[in-house]
Amino acid sequence: MTYHIYHYPLDGASRLVRLALGERGVPFALIAQEPWSPDSVLLSLNPAGELPVLVMEDEKERIVLCGVYSICEYLEETHIGSLLGKNPKDRAETRRLLDWFLHKMRREVTALLIKEKIEKRFTNKASPDSTILCAASANIRGHMQYIDWLIKRHGRLSGAELSLADLAAVAELSVIDYLGHVPWEGFEAVKDWYVRIKSRLSFRPLLNDRINGVAPAKNYANLDF
Amino acid sequence: MTYHIYHYPLDGASRLVRLALGERGVPFALIAQEPWSPDSVLLSLNPAGELPVLVMEDEKERIVLCGVYSICEYLEETHIGSLLGKNPKDRAETRRLLDWFLHKMRREVTALLIKEKIEKRFTNKASPDSTILCAASANIRGHMQYIDWLIKRHGRLSGAELSLADLAAVAELSVIDYLGHVPWEGFEAVKDWYVRIKSRLSFRPLLNDRINGVAPAKNYANLDF
Repeated sequence: MTYHIYHYPLDGASRLVRLALGERGVPFALIAQEPWSPDSVLLSLNPAGELPVLVMEDEKERIVLCGVYSICEYLEETHIGSLLGKNPKDRAETRRLLDWFLHKMRREVTALLIKEKIEKRFTNKASPDSTILCAASANIRGHMQYIDWLIKRHGRLSGAELSLADLAAVAELSVIDYLGHVPWEGFEAVKDWYVRIKSRLSFRPLLNDRINGVAPAKNYANLDF
Repeated sequence: MTYHIYHYPLDGASRLVRLALGERGVPFALIAQEPWSPDSVLLSLNPAGELPVLVMEDEKERIVLCGVYSICEYLEETHIGSLLGKNPKDRAETRRLLDWFLHKMRREVTALLIKEKIEKRFTNKASPDSTILCAASANIRGHMQYIDWLIKRHGRLSGAELSLADLAAVAELSVIDYLGHVPWEGFEAVKDWYVRIKSRLSFRPLLNDRINGVAPAKNYANLDF
């Protein structure tokens, strides 16, 4: 069966799907899309026009999965290797944190940065609004403190093993890191946890992502910084 | 085991959790919260300060579940009665539609109406912004067309039986209906499907919800309109 992911390199949800497949050793191909202008191919696959979309295909069938929630749960149900947790309570905690990083942190930080620093550049050429960038930078500190608190309690974000919660957090955080907005100083525990996950084989391809004309922050691809 | 839901009467996600428990015949108590000003009790249960939160308790343990995603999947794993679907592909479709109604329709319609017509009334007493209300009214038409298309294909929103997708759609739609913004005319199939679900025992308590000083639209509680 072939796997194609419609994705955007700096979309945390798309990154999480790449990690969820990568951790399971499933090879896949990527088809890049600009999330602010879904084309007709993407709209025919996902009427919501949103990323990521996973297309699994062989001679007998073609399965189209839309959205990180639907994709990750489908992989959990049908592929070897659980990333949600061992029991219902652990899985509930992983899912709570998935919501946190993919919705709350995204809305309060990542979406603001992407809109101001990337989307504006490729659409109306307007300059980033510094008030909004400031708000995102203030918000990220609260999330770093929360990640720090979780890590100091568990060693990871939830449960006894690496989970989708860790992967979702690094997926989102790595987008913010590309844009140079992660305040690493004073968050040594978060940095150690992040470097550990960044060093995994599944994460390596993400370190090679580049957006035309927008270079990543200096230490984005460094495994030791 | 006792069940308490921290909810807001006009929050679609809270409504969905009430329906998911109601459909399973599980009795529960409600604790109302204003979503725009989470109190210290809610924040101690859910650091995201978001609704709904489900607290399940007996003499031996206390389980706190935060967010509609975590709650609905936990109920699916631990309680009798599946509302997601029979096989992984059906469940993937249900989950795609859950995202659609709980995030996309909420963002494009419900959240705008709640902010303008309810939150402003109870916080700064500002008048609703008519431009935003117009945008929400335009957006709801697209969602009605999509629901209409899905129903005409399946009889329901997904799969062979009533699912969380139907319940999420009516949960969100019923909030918009309370506020009088559902354009029923021209959408007979949607109306029939809505009335069928509205007539279920699990839905009845939602018809009695009232917000102080904001009466529901004329036909909100009518089973035949």
